[in-house]
Amino acid sequence: MPFLKSYLNQLKLPLPDILKDSEEIEAGYLEHIEDEIALLFPNLVKAKYSEEVSKAKLKVGVVLSGGQASGGHNVIYGLFEGLKKLNEESQLIGFLNGPGGIVDDKTRILDQEFVSKFWNTGGFDMIGSGRTKIEAPEQFKKSLETVQRHQLDALIVIGGDDSNTNAALLAEYFLAHDQPTAVIGVPKTIDGDLKNEAIEISFGFDTATKTYAEMVGNLLIDALSAKKYWFFIRLMGRSASHITLEVAHKTHPNLTLISEERRDLHDIVKEIADLVRERAKAGKNYGMVLVPEGLIEFLPEVPKDFLEGMPVSYDSHGNLEVSKLETEKLLIELVKKELKGEVPFDTQALFFGYEGRSAYPSFFDGTYTYALGRTTALLAAKRATGQIATVGNLKAPVEDWTARGSPLLSMIVLEERKGKEKPVIQKALVDLEGPHYESFKAQEGAWRVEDDYRSPGPIQHWGPDEVVKSRPFILSGL
Amino acid sequence: MPFLKSYLNQLKLPLPDILKDSEEIEAGYLEHIEDEIALLFPNLVKAKYSEEVSKAKLKVGVVLSGGQASGGHNVIYGLFEGLKKLNEESQLIGFLNGPGGIVDDKTRILDQEFVSKFWNTGGFDMIGSGRTKIEAPEQFKKSLETVQRHQLDALIVIGGDDSNTNAALLAEYFLAHDQPTAVIGVPKTIDGDLKNEAIEISFGFDTATKTYAEMVGNLLIDALSAKKYWFFIRLMGRSASHITLEVAHKTHPNLTLISEERRDLHDIVKEIADLVRERAKAGKNYGMVLVPEGLIEFLPEVPKDFLEGMPVSYDSHGNLEVSKLETEKLLIELVKKELKGEVPFDTQALFFGYEGRSAYPSFFDGTYTYALGRTTALLAAKRATGQIATVGNLKAPVEDWTARGSPLLSMIVLEERKGKEKPVIQKALVDLEGPHYESFKAQEGAWRVEDDYRSPGPIQHWGPDEVVKSRPFILSGL
Repeated sequence: MPFLKSYLNQLKLPLPDILKDSEEIEAGYLEHIEDEIALLFPNLVKAKYSEEVSKAKLKVGVVLSGGQASGGHNVIYGLFEGLKKLNEESQLIGFLNGPGGIVDDKTRILDQEFVSKFWNTGGFDMIGSGRTKIEAPEQFKKSLETVQRHQLDALIVIGGDDSNTNAALLAEYFLAHDQPTAVIGVPKTIDGDLKNEAIEISFGFDTATKTYAEMVGNLLIDALSAKKYWFFIRLMGRSASHITLEVAHKTHPNLTLISEERRDLHDIVKEIADLVRERAKAGKNYGMVLVPEGLIEFLPEVPKDFLEGMPVSYDSHGNLEVSKLETEKLLIELVKKELKGEVPFDTQALFFGYEGRSAYPSFFDGTYTYALGRTTALLAAKRATGQIATVGNLKAPVEDWTARGSPLLSMIVLEERKGKEKPVIQKALVDLEGPHYESFKAQEGAWRVEDDYRSPGPIQHWGPDEVVKSRPFILSGL
Repeated sequence: MPFLKSYLNQLKLPLPDILKDSEEIEAGYLEHIEDEIALLFPNLVKAKYSEEVSKAKLKVGVVLSGGQASGGHNVIYGLFEGLKKLNEESQLIGFLNGPGGIVDDKTRILDQEFVSKFWNTGGFDMIGSGRTKIEAPEQFKKSLETVQRHQLDALIVIGGDDSNTNAALLAEYFLAHDQPTAVIGVPKTIDGDLKNEAIEISFGFDTATKTYAEMVGNLLIDALSAKKYWFFIRLMGRSASHITLEVAHKTHPNLTLISEERRDLHDIVKEIADLVRERAKAGKNYGMVLVPEGLIEFLPEVPKDFLEGMPVSYDSHGNLEVSKLETEKLLIELVKKELKGEVPFDTQALFFGYEGRSAYPSFFDGTYTYALGRTTALLAAKRATGQIATVGNLKAPVEDWTARGSPLLSMIVLEERKGKEKPVIQKALVDLEGPHYESFKAQEGAWRVEDDYRSPGPIQHWGPDEVVKSRPFILSGL
């Protein structure tokens, strides 16, 4: 039995032209900043970076933060390779098991042999990941001591919105304490909600959605063959419904719920029940409903009597326990109640999430993260603190991709969290006026009763360019 | 977004040399038969088939029976192509939505354009499938009338053990009524339990286990990266544990339960709890346990008090409702109780089943089923009633595969079902003295605490031969 790793580990991936030979890279300055943000980051707003990419020997630390996303290993590989290209004596260390590894100074040296072993593989097992949030003053102090102890020129934080906000806070803290370690972010999250003018997409989204679409596509063909089940599939993705929308574009299920529509639960149940009746009339006692994980967060308050006898639980304050809710199962029960046995309604409830986070990266994610890693090395050599690596023009062929740094502060706003105003990078929700959603709305009516199912199949690492190199719909705006 | 179907639909697959040009094919006669079986099949035991492969125009019907398995469409394509090669005027019709389509005479004509659309795609959506069992005298009578109405020379039944037993019963019934329609079986089931001296493997097993192993492998890397969850994965596969064993060989989880070991539930729970403690001592509060769907059927009776407060239900006779049991969740609760909070034990419970039945066929399943289809055409032209198509020597390169018919009666025994003696094809359980299981036992100790995880990745349709053309472990006996 061959181990796919041994092949993918040898696979060469292309670099954008700008990263191939050039050592020039731009990092953006803030064009405008709100006063309230400037007050929180008094040093970072004034931070300067070197105009030149330095060839001095560097010592750099890297950390993986939060949930896995395919391509994290390629970021680190690209970072290592980029640093060595600038100066063979530069060193890279990895902080172990997430930001807690910075606080507690748990590290390992990343050398060529070690990083090569993980090239183009999925997961974050190279150095582990974790969800510790550096918040308490003591944690900041210990982090400062760690980077001082290692005399780090730069600290690279590979993470989502929270982790990159944290990167900005660390950058500010280091500057405030005259510590010259630049803190640089890399946009990671399968959820697709770390997205703005500067960041076209976060890495991991493409591989995760392709993996879910493989499963959903298989199940659609299964439904169409046996003609006896309604599949209710809940898809990971925290608050935003980008993953669900992307999978819907790839597979054409009969009904797709989008949390951002903020619909009433009663409406949703009625719509599903109507669709079940409509399809039953057409002789089709099967189908599929896609349910985003975040649906329940967006629902207007659900009357308690509507949930009587349903598989839900309440906390000691009488609030619905959202985190324990298997929304797809709740919907099935509510639809059953609504249908009163009028038509056959046999169901299967499934959840896809973890299996999409640590897959071997798709060509897109593999290439994108390699470029992000190389970009990060150049930003480190410019001491571009408070910046996030951004690789753009992603609809174009790889050679034409752009690479630069963008200031994290341009993405940060104040939001109330637990009663306090906190700086955060705003999560990008599905834009109900954007092309990705609009094209879905234009098509979904046709998917309801006609079975226009698509089974995109598994991610292919070899084969026709159109298959291997396909980009996610979310990028194209179709 | 390219639709993988359009590429796989154009992919050429090789044929074994014996099927390329030759029109010779053997069908086996019974060497020995038990008297009690001979009594049930008085005509079929005496059935003769033509020595020559006839070039006469044929009319053949085909039906897909039971659960989906990847490659069913290639069987029908190969059958169609094989019939047309013998006589361009031969005709193929499909019975719709399973054996019920024979009883009720629901058909569609299968022409070149139509069968080509489904070449090398997953699912049974070409003509649908169903689980109607032809049992009642009235159903046999109506089936006879259907084949008479269509003047069928042969009826091809693509199915598992039950469906092929039914094929033998139909063959007998037609002979007893002087109806010259030959009934010929094809071995299908992802479960891997339709396996004996003549049948090396059933089709669909390879694609299903590769699909589950992709997911399980991703989850292992996820567990290793986040280091916080114990994954309990239940895998489809009815009674036998072949699927679970195959996936274990492909992925090396920390613990794999095999139903055929018939262990006491208390023992199993204790072993898992001990492993959780042992790994916790090694600083590893994560891991994976594979649980075969059939586990609960094989357990010696479980005392009621052991299950108090557990997520189980009982029927009106006080019997445990096995079909409603989510064994992986029950095990989690029992292990939690056993651990009494001594060590961290955060869990995720998942079930993989439906998503592996309708995937695009792997190279192995695609090629195997194409060969089975071509074999079936030759058997039809020999009027080899009561035979099942068998393609063998499957460890060898495709060109060296063998192709022949084997008598179904050689596989049939009497078993008590619902208090009556019934002819059945014996299900092949995991052989606890066979090489597949023994090699697993020799290795599994090393997988418990060391993380020797394998992530085989998704099925590849293009790429290195060792990846694309890999055979299942169950064939090799390793």
